[in-house]
Parts: sequence; structure tokens; C-alpha cells
Amino acid sequence: MTNPFFSIAADVKLIVMDFDGVFTDGSIYLDSNGNNLKKFNVKDGMGIKLLQNYGFIIALITGSKDNIINYRADSLDIKLVFKGINDKLIIINQVQKELGIQPSQTIFLGDDINDLLVLPSVRMFLSPSNAHSACLERAHWIGKSKGGEGFIREVADLFICALNINPNLPFASSNE
Amino acid sequence: MTNPFFSIAADVKLIVMDFDGVFTDGSIYLDSNGNNLKKFNVKDGMGIKLLQNYGFIIALITGSKDNIINYRADSLDIKLVFKGINDKLIIINQVQKELGIQPSQTIFLGDDINDLLVLPSVRMFLSPSNAHSACLERAHWIGKSKGGEGFIREVADLFICALNINPNLPFASSNE
Amino acid sequence: MTNPFFSIAADVKLIVMDFDGVFTDGSIYLDSNGNNLKKFNVKDGMGIKLLQNYGFIIALITGSKDNIINYRADSLDIKLVFKGINDKLIIINQVQKELGIQPSQTIFLGDDINDLLVLPSVRMFLSPSNAHSACLERAHWIGKSKGGEGFIREVADLFICALNINPNLPFASSNE
Amino acid sequence: MTNPFFSIAADVKLIVMDFDGVFTDGSIYLDSNGNNLKKFNVKDGMGIKLLQNYGFIIALITGSKDNIINYRADSLDIKLVFKGINDKLIIINQVQKELGIQPSQTIFLGDDINDLLVLPSVRMFLSPSNAHSACLERAHWIGKSKGGEGFIREVADLFICALNINPNLPFASSNE
Repeated sequence: MTNPFFSIAADVKLIVMDFDGVFTDGSIYLDSNGNNLKKFNVKDGMGIKLLQNYGFIIALITGSKDNIINYRADSLDIKLVFKGINDKLIIINQVQKELGIQPSQTIFLGDDINDLLVLPSVRMFLSPSNAHSACLERAHWIGKSKGGEGFIREVADLFICALNINPNLPFASSNE
Repeated sequence: MTNPFFSIAADVKLIVMDFDGVFTDGSIYLDSNGNNLKKFNVKDGMGIKLLQNYGFIIALITGSKDNIINYRADSLDIKLVFKGINDKLIIINQVQKELGIQPSQTIFLGDDINDLLVLPSVRMFLSPSNAHSACLERAHWIGKSKGGEGFIREVADLFICALNINPNLPFASSNE
Repeated sequence: MTNPFFSIAADVKLIVMDFDGVFTDGSIYLDSNGNNLKKFNVKDGMGIKLLQNYGFIIALITGSKDNIINYRADSLDIKLVFKGINDKLIIINQVQKELGIQPSQTIFLGDDINDLLVLPSVRMFLSPSNAHSACLERAHWIGKSKGGEGFIREVADLFICALNINPNLPFASSNE
Repeated sequence: MTNPFFSIAADVKLIVMDFDGVFTDGSIYLDSNGNNLKKFNVKDGMGIKLLQNYGFIIALITGSKDNIINYRADSLDIKLVFKGINDKLIIINQVQKELGIQPSQTIFLGDDINDLLVLPSVRMFLSPSNAHSACLERAHWIGKSKGGEGFIREVADLFICALNINPNLPFASSNE
């Protein structure tokens, strides 16, 4: 099986991700005081660290507004976080302009119809196996993993492989 | 496969839903201080927004009493919320009378034996794939999805399709 | 398929249950302040209500000590709750003596090796499909459902059926 | 099927475990105030108690820093807990030196690339079925169970069997 990112990994500089359903498994836990809880996976956290270790810039663009996003982003040292966004295309264009990065150097990880707006400005749109059918139809690549259950790590390992680095080497790092 | 709602979608005005097992996955998380937590899915939240966007009125009728219901309903702009209800038929009749909506214009999403009481007053009774066998036997349609894991979105997409609108188009909206 | 409880349901008066892995799915959620959270299912709650409605006495015997047990028991109107128990046989004998109920009138729902101690004092030992192999080997009956995911309801429906009552009839009740 | 630990169980004195993905299922729940929640299984707790009951020393070495680790370790009477560790090899060597235990008397349970650093200092490296592919490639044995869902219990039962003790006997103990 050929690595789907073999021809593009060296070009890509910016990896933009949706939050709910990509970083999380798409579930929301709500308690009787109105507090939220969301679910992540440590293997995805390691995926973010590996991508950063090999120079990729990570950005989060989400329609959601809650503080969970900032806590998770902080623990993984993600600086580019855009919350409460309805039109993700506007923001991705703005980020690209500020960083001097082209659409051809940008990929997006998304799982629902509000993510599809970014299609005109990205090289590849990647979806987890349990994305909405609209994304499964239009994504350039679909992972074997579900969102929030290893999808980011699967993408990270494939990108690192595509850079001719072995992603299975022992790696001294904390879990997050 | 024919759309099961093709002949009725244009008539339907009111979509009434049970809470536990339909909006949620039927689980209850309880902590050592007696606080509750329930689990939802953002794709179902998008389903509610799509249904509202195309003019359907959403109502919640539940036997449960906790505040989680109000927090979830508020975040999705659902105004018709009836809690602590033992006999759901009485309430559905009352809602129909107040809104001037007929049983033939009403569908119900339910998953357990207390939901079956509404059968005399609805056009169709829809159940998730993991509903209690009593519902699976008597429902007019059974989804592929489980409750709280995409069932509401599956219903929403099929209703929108039945109105000759493509539910897979990019849609600028926040996740909830 | 014959109902496994057909010949005993009319005799049984007392249904004793383990907590973790029977009422819950066996998971423990722990937060950074040391608080616990456990996971239940509303369909199991309805099972308890149905069993009580048809006259069965429910008791809980658990090795665990936390307050979650009392909150769950209270919401389902279970009066007989024994926490922090290492030897469940001593307690089950004591309950039977106080209530004047025989071992032949008692069944137990359990899923791990600490539950097997009760075997000398019960008519049948019932286990969920995901019980420890020690229970799967020695149980008199194994359900199709997992603990905390419908196992209690499965038992309830079969017992009610065995009393020649249809468990699928509409039933006006709140979800808990 | 031969017991994979038959020839080594009598030699092994120290069982070292990673935390996230071994003790837990690898998920992290984060709330809007920045609090963490992690998920455990009572059957794994019973596995720890069984291993301790038959004289094995348990140690935890984790990259993570949160207090959940201490609460879980305390409830299972695990004294050797090392948090915030990037290089697990250094710590395992230190523990072995202090306790006078050899690598040939040590096994490790791990599921990700940061765990593989310990390989030079352990007799066997054991992984759950859902470990990262790097561990599945290099582990000496892979369990049938997932991390946080019975993997520790599976290892415990096999070790006890390998000591010619039946792990399925009734055992008076609380659940944790």
C-alpha cells in the first residue's frame, strides 16, 4: 500500500484541524450544572507532538466556544486556536495570509458539513472513518481510525513515514 | 433504497423526541455527590439545526427531570421541553392542540416502552437500531444508527432529502 | 427458545445484584480531585422498575463503598443496599433470614470471582455476557447483554415473560 | 494453548506498568474548568489485587503528571509511582537497583512508543491488543484485551495460572 502523502508531505507546512469529531470522538458530556466534558485520546496527543517535532504547524478552527478547547490546546502547545467560527474558509485564508503559507501547503482534517467550506483553500481534506457521509464522499483521503480514537495519530504516522522517518522508533515524551 | 419519508416529509410539521436513548445514548453517569452527566453527539446537534433550518418544530417529552435536558435544549434553541412526564400521550395531544398541528403532521422518535403510549397520536414512530425490542416490533421505521450516536442526524438527513434538498452541502454553522 | 426462568419465576422472591459490572458497565471514572463517576443505563433502570412492579424484592451487595451506590439505589427506590462487603455469602444469608426467604427463592446477578461466594445460597447465578470467565463457567445462565448495558433489563423481561405477562406493553413511567 | 508465562512466572518479581492506555483505556476527559477524568475497569483492579496477593511487586511509570494517578494507585495499594517521566528506562533501572531486582525478574506492560525505551531492562514487554503498531511489532506477547478493559486482569490470570494456582476460585475482596 502506497503512502497517500508520499508526494505531498515535504510541501505541507500547515495542518488545520476541526475540534469536535477530529480531536474528540464527537461526544459531548453535559452535567446538571451545565458544565461540558469532552473525550480525547493520548495516542492522538502523541501524534500532535510528533507532527510538531518534525516541523508541521498545527491550527485548530472550531465552531464551538468552550474552554475545553483552550485547555487541550495548551497541554499540546498548540498556539493557533480559532473558536466560535461559522465560516472556516475565512479563517483558514486569514491564517495562510499571516503565515505566508499557500493552500498547496495546507491540509485540513474534518468530519462534518461545516468543515467542507474550506475545500477551496486546502491541498487535501482528510476525514476519519466515522465522518458524515458528505465528508466521506468528498475527502481526498479517509483514515481507518475514528475521530478522537487515533485518527490524528494515523495521519501523523503516515506524514512522518512520507518524510522517510520511522514513526515507530522509541520516543522519550510524556503522554498528554 | 427509497426514502422512507418521501411521501410524508412535506406534511410533517412537528417532530417530537424522547430524551434518554434518543438525544443521549441511554447512559447515565453519576458521581459521588449525586450529580448526573449525560452523553450527546455533535452530529445529532447538527441534525437538530438542519431540521429547524428547514422549518420543522422540535419538541422534547421526557420522564426524566434533571437540568441537563434544559442545558442541551437551550444550546440547540429547542423551546418545547416537557420534563417529568409519565404519560407522554397526554402531553403530545396538548402540544398538538396548542400549535394547531394534527397527528398526521407529527412524528415521534422513541426507544422504550414508555414512549409507545404516543402511538395513537403520531403519523410515524421512529426508533434507533438499539431501541428496546418492544419499539423495534412496533416502530414504523428503524434507523441504522444508535440513539445518541447519529440517530437524530440520520432522521434529519432523510427528511431533508425527502424535501428534495441535498443534506450533504457545506453548511456554515457552529458545532453543538 | 424456551424461557430459562419459566419453571422458577413464580417461586423467586428476592433478586440480589452485584453493583460494578452488573448495575454499571464495570468502568470507574476518576477525576483529579479523587471523585468517582460510574456509568448506568436507563433501560436497566426501567428493568428494576418492572421487577418491582411485579413484586420482586431487589437487593444490592457490593464490595465498593462509594456514595454513587446510594444515589443510584435511591433513584430506583431500592431499600436493601449493603456496601463494603468482602464476603457476600454472609450478607445474603442474613438478608434471607431477616426476610424469611429461602435460597430456592433467591437469584443472584454477578460478574466476578468475589460474587461466586454466594453460590451455596442461591437458586440461580446469572451473569452478563462480558463477565469474568470464572463466572461464565459456573453461572446457571448467561445473558446476551453486557453488564450496565441492558443485562438487568434482559433478566427483567425474561422473568416477567415467565410470569405470563407481556414485557413489551406500553408502560407509563419516568426514565431513571 | 500454552501459557506464555509458564517458564518465567516463578522468576518474575516486579511488574512495571504504563498508566494511560494500560491502566486506563487511553482516553482523557477534560471539562470546561480544566479538570481531567480518566477511565478504569474494576476487573483490572481485581487483577492488581490478585498479583499483589501472590507476591508480585507493582510499579507505575508514566509521563503524565496528574493526581488521578495517585488516587488510583492509593485505592489499589500501589506504593511505587513515578510521574512526569520522559525516559522510563532511567527510572526502571533505578527501581531495580533499589529493590535488588534484575531485568530478568522484571516485566513491563506498555502501549506506545515512549514505553519502548524500557526494552533493554525487562524480561518481557507485554502489550494490549489496541497498542500502537510500534508496540505490537516489538512486544514479546500481545493480550486479547484492550488497555483499561481487562488487559491487566488477563495478564494477572495468566501469571497466577503459571504459578499453578487457579485464578477462577471465589475470592473474598472488594471491587476497586
